[in-house]
Amino acid sequence: MKNIIKSYKKDFDYSYTSGASITIELLKKKPDLVESVFIHPDFRQPDTIATLCAKNGIDCIQDDIVFKRTNQKENSYVLGVFKKYPSVIEKNAPHVVLANPSDMGNLGTIIRTLAGFNIHNLAIITPAADIWNPKTIRASMGSRFHANFQHYKCIEEYLDEFPKHKIYTFMLDGAVDLRNIPIQKPFSLVFGNEATGLGENYRYIGTVVKIPQSTVVDSLNLSVAVAIGAFCFTTT
Amino acid sequence: MKNIIKSYKKDFDYSYTSGASITIELLKKKPDLVESVFIHPDFRQPDTIATLCAKNGIDCIQDDIVFKRTNQKENSYVLGVFKKYPSVIEKNAPHVVLANPSDMGNLGTIIRTLAGFNIHNLAIITPAADIWNPKTIRASMGSRFHANFQHYKCIEEYLDEFPKHKIYTFMLDGAVDLRNIPIQKPFSLVFGNEATGLGENYRYIGTVVKIPQSTVVDSLNLSVAVAIGAFCFTTT
Repeated sequence: MKNIIKSYKKDFDYSYTSGASITIELLKKKPDLVESVFIHPDFRQPDTIATLCAKNGIDCIQDDIVFKRTNQKENSYVLGVFKKYPSVIEKNAPHVVLANPSDMGNLGTIIRTLAGFNIHNLAIITPAADIWNPKTIRASMGSRFHANFQHYKCIEEYLDEFPKHKIYTFMLDGAVDLRNIPIQKPFSLVFGNEATGLGENYRYIGTVVKIPQSTVVDSLNLSVAVAIGAFCFTTT
Repeated sequence: MKNIIKSYKKDFDYSYTSGASITIELLKKKPDLVESVFIHPDFRQPDTIATLCAKNGIDCIQDDIVFKRTNQKENSYVLGVFKKYPSVIEKNAPHVVLANPSDMGNLGTIIRTLAGFNIHNLAIITPAADIWNPKTIRASMGSRFHANFQHYKCIEEYLDEFPKHKIYTFMLDGAVDLRNIPIQKPFSLVFGNEATGLGENYRYIGTVVKIPQSTVVDSLNLSVAVAIGAFCFTTT
């Protein structure tokens, strides 16, 4: 039982949620993985969380030192410590593939957005931002615990595992306008790194799609591009 | 001439860009407002910036202390100090109206996204995140200097000024699906605060629009919602 937690490091075998509503999501979705929950003495509405903890036999500890120790920037009054768990993506479901995403805020926002469009399977090509980092989890607003995810060392490893998926790669110079795409299922929507986009090795693995945009900006923010792609593929 | 700048505060009459490419955008778009540019001695490609400064008679100062003094979290090697300037939005152009946005990252990302869809006029209902803060400017990736913006104390003040605009308010329980909206121009797309959305006083000022989304998430991130709205209104 990790009653004393430290500022998160990537090699820990546990992570934590920071905030009341996301911790409630964790307790509802993955109660068996929760090791303990910390509540700040100033937190005003501890009842829901205390009840969920009691129901699942989880220690619910009132304590303020842990909030200082984890260097919380946000004024979070609830921390849920949980064990990292293995996850695999589903064979016949729609996928999003992120190649080397580097920003934890983007990664979390993307998980939240995809959940909003009923895409629950995310492949990540490494190296990539840490999907377990409390910052990523916080940006996902709790939808993190609904998502399946799986890491791959390269796109070829992913493609070998899912030969039936129709691949759509999003590139600034894509040949086909997103608005005119004939959508085939199951689909994989593939997006590159924030700064560099998709490399040339991604050009010939599927249909290259562009999001129509003005020349005033170099590109759209990654989480915005994924949102628009997911919206068009799931709602038209 | 502010050769010595401090960590930004909202009541300053100047702000600064942090980063090379955004400072180049500032120097190209608003050279008359730039007071000075600081370059870290370790910055490897100072020529473009030095040339732009020389062309516009702007001091370009090699210095490392200023980078410590402004508490830069990112490893920025270029700072462009500029005077805040008045801005008004255009009468017959499409508008986005943000009611009480609270997150500077969202605000900057929204400015960048709107530029990507050729919407260059942003109305902001106060209180709101500071559009001048270096964090907002950084998230806008330089498109900040292409945007017109104007602050309003309440939505009524905005509506009085633009009686011809067709108002579309984005709410979770909107009556009309975004995909089926008959688009009338000039339009105003109105979005609420990150946590609270639009209040009830926004319900009867125009067409209430909803973005179709699953029940897994409470809502989409604000910058994502604005992106999808702007995409649909400008590209269909």
